[in-house]
Amino acid sequence: MQQTEQHLGLRVMMLAKLTAGNDAQATINRARLDQAGAVAVNIIGSPGAGKTALLECTVRVLRADLNCAVIEGDLCTSRDGERVAALGIPVVQINTSGACHLDAGMVSAALEALPIPPCNLILIENVGNLVCPAAFELGERVRVVVLSVPEGHDKVAKYPAAFRHADLVVVSKTDLLEAVDFDAAALHADLRSIGCEAPVLELSAKTGAGTGAWAAWLRGAVGRHLRPERR
Amino acid sequence: MQQTEQHLGLRVMMLAKLTAGNDAQATINRARLDQAGAVAVNIIGSPGAGKTALLECTVRVLRADLNCAVIEGDLCTSRDGERVAALGIPVVQINTSGACHLDAGMVSAALEALPIPPCNLILIENVGNLVCPAAFELGERVRVVVLSVPEGHDKVAKYPAAFRHADLVVVSKTDLLEAVDFDAAALHADLRSIGCEAPVLELSAKTGAGTGAWAAWLRGAVGRHLRPERR
Repeated sequence: MQQTEQHLGLRVMMLAKLTAGNDAQATINRARLDQAGAVAVNIIGSPGAGKTALLECTVRVLRADLNCAVIEGDLCTSRDGERVAALGIPVVQINTSGACHLDAGMVSAALEALPIPPCNLILIENVGNLVCPAAFELGERVRVVVLSVPEGHDKVAKYPAAFRHADLVVVSKTDLLEAVDFDAAALHADLRSIGCEAPVLELSAKTGAGTGAWAAWLRGAVGRHLRPERR
Repeated sequence: MQQTEQHLGLRVMMLAKLTAGNDAQATINRARLDQAGAVAVNIIGSPGAGKTALLECTVRVLRADLNCAVIEGDLCTSRDGERVAALGIPVVQINTSGACHLDAGMVSAALEALPIPPCNLILIENVGNLVCPAAFELGERVRVVVLSVPEGHDKVAKYPAAFRHADLVVVSKTDLLEAVDFDAAALHADLRSIGCEAPVLELSAKTGAGTGAWAAWLRGAVGRHLRPERR
């Protein structure tokens, strides 16, 4: 196994270099958003976890209180960006050209293109991937991990890095709960076993169940970081 | 956007270096398997796409004809390896310690631990990720991409690298077709638009529907690469 370990060691070293540069840019992004009275939310999840559907219902509910903008991350296509832009809010679509996650440099460029202010809630949909986005801060104040019911309750233990630093775990597509085996108690136990104390909210963007509680949680989490005059 | 592009350029350059070393090891793995009269199948898909369930039903159906072994790739835990080992076949669990895909070096080490021969069908479950595994050959002769119905039919255009070099696309969890919107015609159109001519097989490991056609396809694809005396 020595060859494998050397191979892994090489990659980990390079990743550390990459993330150091990224973390510095993320700190700059965060300071810039703080200064502008805005908060970014980094939404992470597998392909098809329901991130875009969650964004759509979030904007519909919160736009009365908060001035929303969206940064859409995808390897290719602007399909998700077009879906969200149809809601009439500012959207920047980032195509990563194959890169497996957004990074703080990409988000910095996207922030330049958004009207901040007046926008004060910047929702960032990361590339669909439950592994790589976990290592790259973007400048967010709030990190949400979305796990869909059909993916299975066993994903926390298998992809712990994604969940460990989550501020909230959203269990999405609960309309499928009757059709699949999903053990919420096992999910909670796995979250605690990896040291994640984040609350878990179950919702279905399709039926709307749970989306009120999600909007209330997000409004509270974002509000704590907004300057008083912009709340 | 210049900063972003430079950033991306740096990463792409490093990835090219990594994959060159990987490809050389993959060629060694493939030659070694050819020499031993064995074939490896690389199974790629998102977290929760149903790769392990597909493996379980594959082993149950094909073990009468082929001598199966499994290499299980996961960031953490040996849960999938234990599920497959319960079938009584040789299994090596690779924990990547956070790495987002298997590579040829890891598979080389795993092959050392498997009885080849007599095993002649090596089923490799990659890390759950529809992005990164696409760039890393493992020494397989057959590459299968699994897309589950609840992930949505729009994933081909958004994750083209994963699908472009597939020998077969498996649409899994078809038992959920009535519960979600899934447009098979759109999936086929997207596959053709990215230059993927692979056939598409729909199946449900839960109900068994379509698993016979899958086993027949795999038996044929593997058989073409086995030495005559081992077929």
